[in-house]
Amino acid sequence: MHPTNNASSLSSTLFVIFGAGGDLTWRKLMPALYNLWLDGWLPHDFVITGIDRRQMSKDDFAQHIRDGIDQFSRQGKSDDKQWADFATHLDYVSADFGAAATFADLAERVAALGKEWSQPPNVVYYLAISPALIQMVVEGLGKVGLADDRDHASIVVEKPFGRDLDSARALNSMLTQTFAETQIYRIDHYLGKETVQNILAMRFANAIFEPLWNRTSIERVEITVAESVGVEHRGGYYDHAGAVRDMIQNHLLQIFCLISMEPPIVFAADEIRDKKVEVLRAVRPIAPEKVDQLAKRGQYEGYRQEPDVSASSNTETFAQLTLHVDNWRWQGVPFVLRTGKALKDKVSLVKIRFRSIPHRAFPAAAVPRWPRNELQIHIQPNEGIDICMLAKEPGPELLLKPVDMNFRYSEDFAKKPMPEAYETLLLDVMQRDATLFMRGDQVETAWRVVMPVLDAWGHSDDQPTVYPVGSWGP
Amino acid sequence: MHPTNNASSLSSTLFVIFGAGGDLTWRKLMPALYNLWLDGWLPHDFVITGIDRRQMSKDDFAQHIRDGIDQFSRQGKSDDKQWADFATHLDYVSADFGAAATFADLAERVAALGKEWSQPPNVVYYLAISPALIQMVVEGLGKVGLADDRDHASIVVEKPFGRDLDSARALNSMLTQTFAETQIYRIDHYLGKETVQNILAMRFANAIFEPLWNRTSIERVEITVAESVGVEHRGGYYDHAGAVRDMIQNHLLQIFCLISMEPPIVFAADEIRDKKVEVLRAVRPIAPEKVDQLAKRGQYEGYRQEPDVSASSNTETFAQLTLHVDNWRWQGVPFVLRTGKALKDKVSLVKIRFRSIPHRAFPAAAVPRWPRNELQIHIQPNEGIDICMLAKEPGPELLLKPVDMNFRYSEDFAKKPMPEAYETLLLDVMQRDATLFMRGDQVETAWRVVMPVLDAWGHSDDQPTVYPVGSWGP
Repeated sequence: MHPTNNASSLSSTLFVIFGAGGDLTWRKLMPALYNLWLDGWLPHDFVITGIDRRQMSKDDFAQHIRDGIDQFSRQGKSDDKQWADFATHLDYVSADFGAAATFADLAERVAALGKEWSQPPNVVYYLAISPALIQMVVEGLGKVGLADDRDHASIVVEKPFGRDLDSARALNSMLTQTFAETQIYRIDHYLGKETVQNILAMRFANAIFEPLWNRTSIERVEITVAESVGVEHRGGYYDHAGAVRDMIQNHLLQIFCLISMEPPIVFAADEIRDKKVEVLRAVRPIAPEKVDQLAKRGQYEGYRQEPDVSASSNTETFAQLTLHVDNWRWQGVPFVLRTGKALKDKVSLVKIRFRSIPHRAFPAAAVPRWPRNELQIHIQPNEGIDICMLAKEPGPELLLKPVDMNFRYSEDFAKKPMPEAYETLLLDVMQRDATLFMRGDQVETAWRVVMPVLDAWGHSDDQPTVYPVGSWGP
Repeated sequence: MHPTNNASSLSSTLFVIFGAGGDLTWRKLMPALYNLWLDGWLPHDFVITGIDRRQMSKDDFAQHIRDGIDQFSRQGKSDDKQWADFATHLDYVSADFGAAATFADLAERVAALGKEWSQPPNVVYYLAISPALIQMVVEGLGKVGLADDRDHASIVVEKPFGRDLDSARALNSMLTQTFAETQIYRIDHYLGKETVQNILAMRFANAIFEPLWNRTSIERVEITVAESVGVEHRGGYYDHAGAVRDMIQNHLLQIFCLISMEPPIVFAADEIRDKKVEVLRAVRPIAPEKVDQLAKRGQYEGYRQEPDVSASSNTETFAQLTLHVDNWRWQGVPFVLRTGKALKDKVSLVKIRFRSIPHRAFPAAAVPRWPRNELQIHIQPNEGIDICMLAKEPGPELLLKPVDMNFRYSEDFAKKPMPEAYETLLLDVMQRDATLFMRGDQVETAWRVVMPVLDAWGHSDDQPTVYPVGSWGP
């Protein structure tokens, strides 16, 4: 999230994807890189090297990637001429992540490009691989010295960042044995969404929200990320994760941080991440005896029959956590984080509900109901912001009715297409801007928030409440 | 502005219009009454008696009124059947306002209707006459006892309420010799506008505005009522009034009151009017030596050549006053009241400009300009409310651009037609709800605010600055 970027500001770059034959590369990474390239964000000296075990020619790889772009790019099918040009930047290596030669060859390649480009290239190592392979690749890179150049080498790690506090600590510790924290980009694609990025702009570039942004005015905050699909083909992974690990520990807590953090002094990566860690640290630990009261879990009907899901699975596909923040700003204001699969609708929404007005001067008959004022941040769909308030209904009588004030991206920025989250985030990595990425301590602090719930559910014989597919959960 | 009204809640009513042959009756009063009748607000026992000097049969009067309705009613041309029904409620008396018989006959009529309806009717005496005739009619009514029934007789007075503080006091004193203050309805049609009425709803039915509504958050308030037309056929009247008397002393100061007043305890006529008087009293008197600095006047090019306007007229057709309010809430916040004729556009707008954010964390390049947040109340046209704020422009770079959040009556209340201000106000009079009418002390206090400016301009040899027709004034 750079203020002044454009293609010319990016120096020569090598983008290495480990796991180039996988789904993430095909659906997300390559379409994002292609769109960045189409929009002129990428530099002249630019190479994408895909590495995977699969045997594939460079041409086959390119064709496979083009298929993915044609299906998933927000700018639609690729143009032949543009594609031909882009494809010259593509490279594919089939190699074993466990073989020393893989990394030795890569080191040679980096050195050769440095000579060709007459400057040490920025190198991004993107780990689009299963968690089990991360250590192998990181150590491989480290052994041949590819992690050494702290100013030019970066590594991108995808979620999950561990499956609990201990494993997250172990992962961080392993990563930082080879890479410095400033080289590590833990990606949470939610932070790349325009509407999520806009939360900080809204709060800290405007004078009208911050005076209301506290316990005096706000009664309750709800963060909802609802999915309408079930686990689909990810049953194997999901059944070992569940809604808290898959969504709340990362996406929802990140949104929580943006909503609740104190104002940053400067808009810089570590400053903003400090402020996020600070508010996460202020979250009141959920005591074991409070878990039942502050956390709810559910499982959609038929989940146990999904492919690769245990027939006796207690994994939650719906989770709701109520957090309290022990600081001056938020004391007494519940933050409800809620997410689930197979729900009625796909919607990501933050609702800031304000307190009731302190005194009702209007006659009772004038106000059939007194809904609270609400500020709604629509992350998706209908990207934008609503303020729900009361206004006088036109007519000779005094009758107050709820109305909405709206800001919609599609109206105010009709001519600016919304980039995919991955475009924003990949460009940020190449620009070495970590603002939208999670620092190690942030990830650990987030785990600390959810651990009491995971522990309690893990040790409990209770089962998640079953809810019907297409409902709003239990 | 009643919460529960509907036709059945209005008891039998006689609506007497003095000046029934005039323009106001034709363009405004009768179309408003007709629309109220169409919408079912008027009671079964309802008579409109027009009184004027002009000789006219009842049928001719009805035809004349129907012509006006067909031209000016917001519901369009009248339907034959509906009109025939409505016309049965119409009555016309040609009479001399100076003749004792006029009032004696009227008293007989009131008594007869009371018998016919088996209850004393509400009687509204509407003075749609020149200020010079007011005393004659008021005294005429008083002499025959028609003002005596404080619970059933009301009198409606149109602006101007004097032409300075002394004459306003004299007018109030004359009126209250015959009628009690609670019987007197001083009409300011601006207060009947939906968007003006909504100001109190917005402020006091919502929790999100009041915390911002003070000197800590607000930098400046601007109230603009711009007209695109010149004086048209009203040159004779206008040349003796000018923009301050014609617009600022009443309409703009009323809007000022609604924006700046303290929260009412109950939504009742005297409570709200007390709060208005209170803030008017807090307006810092403009010292003679400060008039040049705090007040501006202009005259549109060609004004002196308008019909019935003096060729050497110094009357202002544009005026701007900057008021300061000496109380805790508003100390240091200028309120700029501005109005003019022959300006570029017809627009009535309140702009609440907020202070700058206290700290700019964003990099300079991310914010090409820093407009202040602004809350805009569009009184007309485009009735509604805008909040002007900054948001992140979609794209991989961080760039903040101004956007608007909107509430529009035409969208949220698409199915509720906006009644004309006169409909609201006439119904309020019949319901004896004085909330939207000006109390005597309020009118006098408003005169006190503008007197230093009128005095200074009256005694000055300076001339108003001439501005081109169709400009935004001097």
